[in-house]
Amino acid sequence: MIVVMKPFATQEMITRIMKRVESLGMKPHVIVGVERTVIAATGAEPEGIQAEIEACDEVEKVMPILAPYKIASRETRKEPTVIRCGSLVLGGGHIGVIAGPCSVESEEQIMQVAAQVKAAGATALRGGAFKPRTSPYAFQGMKEAGLKLLAAARDATGLAVVTEVMTPHHVELVSKYADILQIGARNMQNYHLLQAVGETRKPILLKRGPSATIEEFLLAAEYILDQGNHDVILCERGIRTFETHTRFTLPLATVPYLREKTHLPIITDPSHGTGIASLVPSMSAASIAAGADGLILEVHPNPSKAVSDGAQTLTPAAFEATMQLCRKVATALGKTM
Amino acid sequence: MIVVMKPFATQEMITRIMKRVESLGMKPHVIVGVERTVIAATGAEPEGIQAEIEACDEVEKVMPILAPYKIASRETRKEPTVIRCGSLVLGGGHIGVIAGPCSVESEEQIMQVAAQVKAAGATALRGGAFKPRTSPYAFQGMKEAGLKLLAAARDATGLAVVTEVMTPHHVELVSKYADILQIGARNMQNYHLLQAVGETRKPILLKRGPSATIEEFLLAAEYILDQGNHDVILCERGIRTFETHTRFTLPLATVPYLREKTHLPIITDPSHGTGIASLVPSMSAASIAAGADGLILEVHPNPSKAVSDGAQTLTPAAFEATMQLCRKVATALGKTM
Amino acid sequence: MIVVMKPFATQEMITRIMKRVESLGMKPHVIVGVERTVIAATGAEPEGIQAEIEACDEVEKVMPILAPYKIASRETRKEPTVIRCGSLVLGGGHIGVIAGPCSVESEEQIMQVAAQVKAAGATALRGGAFKPRTSPYAFQGMKEAGLKLLAAARDATGLAVVTEVMTPHHVELVSKYADILQIGARNMQNYHLLQAVGETRKPILLKRGPSATIEEFLLAAEYILDQGNHDVILCERGIRTFETHTRFTLPLATVPYLREKTHLPIITDPSHGTGIASLVPSMSAASIAAGADGLILEVHPNPSKAVSDGAQTLTPAAFEATMQLCRKVATALGKTM
Amino acid sequence: MIVVMKPFATQEMITRIMKRVESLGMKPHVIVGVERTVIAATGAEPEGIQAEIEACDEVEKVMPILAPYKIASRETRKEPTVIRCGSLVLGGGHIGVIAGPCSVESEEQIMQVAAQVKAAGATALRGGAFKPRTSPYAFQGMKEAGLKLLAAARDATGLAVVTEVMTPHHVELVSKYADILQIGARNMQNYHLLQAVGETRKPILLKRGPSATIEEFLLAAEYILDQGNHDVILCERGIRTFETHTRFTLPLATVPYLREKTHLPIITDPSHGTGIASLVPSMSAASIAAGADGLILEVHPNPSKAVSDGAQTLTPAAFEATMQLCRKVATALGKTM
Repeated sequence: MIVVMKPFATQEMITRIMKRVESLGMKPHVIVGVERTVIAATGAEPEGIQAEIEACDEVEKVMPILAPYKIASRETRKEPTVIRCGSLVLGGGHIGVIAGPCSVESEEQIMQVAAQVKAAGATALRGGAFKPRTSPYAFQGMKEAGLKLLAAARDATGLAVVTEVMTPHHVELVSKYADILQIGARNMQNYHLLQAVGETRKPILLKRGPSATIEEFLLAAEYILDQGNHDVILCERGIRTFETHTRFTLPLATVPYLREKTHLPIITDPSHGTGIASLVPSMSAASIAAGADGLILEVHPNPSKAVSDGAQTLTPAAFEATMQLCRKVATALGKTM
Repeated sequence: MIVVMKPFATQEMITRIMKRVESLGMKPHVIVGVERTVIAATGAEPEGIQAEIEACDEVEKVMPILAPYKIASRETRKEPTVIRCGSLVLGGGHIGVIAGPCSVESEEQIMQVAAQVKAAGATALRGGAFKPRTSPYAFQGMKEAGLKLLAAARDATGLAVVTEVMTPHHVELVSKYADILQIGARNMQNYHLLQAVGETRKPILLKRGPSATIEEFLLAAEYILDQGNHDVILCERGIRTFETHTRFTLPLATVPYLREKTHLPIITDPSHGTGIASLVPSMSAASIAAGADGLILEVHPNPSKAVSDGAQTLTPAAFEATMQLCRKVATALGKTM
Repeated sequence: MIVVMKPFATQEMITRIMKRVESLGMKPHVIVGVERTVIAATGAEPEGIQAEIEACDEVEKVMPILAPYKIASRETRKEPTVIRCGSLVLGGGHIGVIAGPCSVESEEQIMQVAAQVKAAGATALRGGAFKPRTSPYAFQGMKEAGLKLLAAARDATGLAVVTEVMTPHHVELVSKYADILQIGARNMQNYHLLQAVGETRKPILLKRGPSATIEEFLLAAEYILDQGNHDVILCERGIRTFETHTRFTLPLATVPYLREKTHLPIITDPSHGTGIASLVPSMSAASIAAGADGLILEVHPNPSKAVSDGAQTLTPAAFEATMQLCRKVATALGKTM
Repeated sequence: MIVVMKPFATQEMITRIMKRVESLGMKPHVIVGVERTVIAATGAEPEGIQAEIEACDEVEKVMPILAPYKIASRETRKEPTVIRCGSLVLGGGHIGVIAGPCSVESEEQIMQVAAQVKAAGATALRGGAFKPRTSPYAFQGMKEAGLKLLAAARDATGLAVVTEVMTPHHVELVSKYADILQIGARNMQNYHLLQAVGETRKPILLKRGPSATIEEFLLAAEYILDQGNHDVILCERGIRTFETHTRFTLPLATVPYLREKTHLPIITDPSHGTGIASLVPSMSAASIAAGADGLILEVHPNPSKAVSDGAQTLTPAAFEATMQLCRKVATALGKTM
């Protein structure tokens, strides 16, 4: 870390900071500038030391040098992590597409849409059985009955099943039926849940929180990785900004930026990222062009009858057109899809 | 709700929407404008109907009229809810101050600071035993040992104890020791946790998520209220914006705005809301002037030795000065503190 | 507009609003709901009427129905506007690429980079002669000498010249040398400047302000269009959000969203939109895939010697690679580039 | 500045950066850490050097140490700048209140409101003659006729007149009538305008742009100060965030934060900062408690008839109540108002 002293800091104050740095096993380097003195501390930093130093009156600010995530970092592992889970392959030039309804609503609905998305080229099936809803008065999902229907749809189509788990004590139950466990955006910093899914050996689809920084996102992944589960899929699903014409703002620069920082596969969610079905095809193609390893898309046999998220959901026909568009871009870039 | 049709919508399309609205027990009112037709639907709205209608191709947008929260609403209950919990009174002209360290670190630390904040006028003690930390490598709290120390500090000082609960299966344990359960900002939309604390009869201090809208905030409160627990304290603790000179942006207009919408008491957290100890006194006074019913503040005997959040933590002396400043403002406005 | 009355509004209050609406030549339609009364007003709205009604005590809110921009709207003109300006064609399936340095620095620099970007396929040359700089102590541009060098570079390469104009009384001077006038993001709501460039007959490249809504952006275009200049190019260059790992957040959904709302051509600026050269190729390709009609990119013979914006500037070699990548995507989507 | 090298940087690369730093007259200090090497450069930094260094491939990032503003800085001038302009005194414990309508509409309106705000304790009169409006179809102000009415209102009441100037060639005209020139939020980075008002010797009320950082705000002030005009009043008027329940988000921590950084007086604009008249009294009182040197408030004899900004405008009675509330807080804090 770099410690910038206030302009009036005396030699005594500087010495005090240096001694504290040394007492923690780090090495201080003092640089006397024209207007300010700076202390660079090298060596392993104990947790909390930056906050401690910054709380000192004579210190103007402390600037970190190292990224706080380790296992997720590209510096730890150079080659990309490829996730293979049944029909789904993500990373290493393979683009996977996870598609399905926001919520599982009935056997007929999930069976029909599973067959439709498979026919159009999806390689995994999504569907919510436990639904996090902003209002306590909204439909909260079919729960275990929904999980059973998802498993039945997998049996019928061969598609890997992705579904959300919302609380630690559901992890075992959801793991019985699902192939990939999804952590929703609202739970990105639900640390007990992250640790609980980290103890499974299922791949985890981790959605970025709508106000999470990239560093917080990678640290959330680190919670899972740190439990020994190395199959984490990062999903950019849009951030909350001042824009209101779209439901969220989908910042696609996340894709190439994360690529530089981490070896984990990166997908996007243009359905939640825009909230408007007519924008989903373009933003899916743009995601592929930005380098995404996959997509997660909401598809429903009849979006205007969907119990949740109808406005952002593709019809099966629109999904097929989206797949064709994306395949053109993927092929042009030498990727398989 | 108000349904705005697209300019090209035909009479047939309009009739289709009207029939759908009627089939759900609502009454449609058609208004033919110069450029567009609008359908106003009155009566009780079934869950999900707005999304369904908005997903129709011929519909431009659907605009809600009613707020989706009910029990929290000022329209349900006119008089303010006053929370009384031992030493702490919040609302109805009484300003409560919850103060203490970010984390419980040792018996000596918590006993010392409890006595100090009490002497300066705090009416409740805060302290984290289970700590949500962005990094898995950061100090995660003393857990049950920390809860026991908090209870001991209550016994010694008479101050009500406020501490965070992070996951549903800790609710029972934390309730054994704490007087008020805190839901942290990261967990504002952890619905299983909201329901679990809603089942207790302890007052709940609910922190606003850093990217939550006011409506989402009140709906999170509604999850707790809907379980029969009516003692919810709303806490504005800062939102995430483009500003980086402060840790978060503390939007004090939340206080008078919430006052118009809800009967629940409203407090602010200037420590997290700014992240900078030197700004805390002014923002505490400003919170009182904005009409807040209370404050939650981080105080540590020695901030530069705090294991977490040192930069935003007041010394006991600075806390005492803050209290004096706030008391002047409270007195000028005819409130007790 | 839709006027939502407060729950307690009496019949007398409702009648007062209705009479006011009628007195302005609009027609009120009253819808009595279970909890609230709503008044829909149809017909041409006089300026300021929404604010007037919203200021009434008995009114809860006023919701607009119509977009306030007219000439820019897709409803006014269905077919896309194609801008043709010498070597540059934007829109109607043609992708144009405007490339060059942030600032014109010397004859050698601009001549060299103009030849390089042309060789790689750029169809217009950018370069700043008058530079808006955050600090008064930063380089402010070569001014008229810079304009002359840009004109010389056009003579040598045939590339159309795009350069920024910062204040109304420079419009005549800049128009003497430039083919396309750029309005920078900081000036998107500098209305005197918008009107001044609206009086010319040069195409205008209008950059979105970093906190402008889409509606404000289209209304800024409307200021230009309203003066009779119909050749406006909309440029998404990134918005200010809480993200700090990129200089701005580049919201590509702007591209398909604007396509639905307006007939004007839409380009993106991945250089400013990310602030990081290594992210520019991916985000350029993503822009094309999102449906953009063109790109504006910063290229410098030696970015680390650039007097401004070095960190986001491509080398000529990186620009060439970016062009190849974009051409693959454009070809896959059936566009010419 | 601090230059952080990438992990793979070789000694040769490090030497190259060091030599470049030396060639510019700065002194490099190399600190070899466990994972990375850092170069601290001390001495006067030439403009643009940070961007240059950051553009080098082997450099991970460059971190500035010094604030880029100088004349505005508290380090340049310790004692607060007090602005005295006729009836208005801002700073040094004196709270000034600038009140009046958004737009000057008629002689009757401005004379009436000037008398009313004076009676309630305002010390200056605001009113727009040239109005920046988002839509070209909105009322653009009475122009010079409005300026004349403002001057007449000053003659009648003795209140100093504050009004906006929008473009450099109006500076002379507006200066003929106004006592204080206002730069609106949309023009905070209109550098030609900043320089033009910097050449006058009128006090300048500079509003913060809705997405400007504090550093950009102070650098905009620096443009004015650098022309020799040292009477700059900083005005926080709200930033654009994801919040939509208020028109903007009013971040009052700006007040104590700016106090630490600059000697210039700081006021707030609760009318624009909230956009809702009922929130203005609380936020005015909160501004005073946060340490503001003054307020600028919109008042109109009949807000629902105002041609602009009606929803956020106080009636004369509400203004009087706001003044009484603020005076209580000011008195409690030992300030005069």
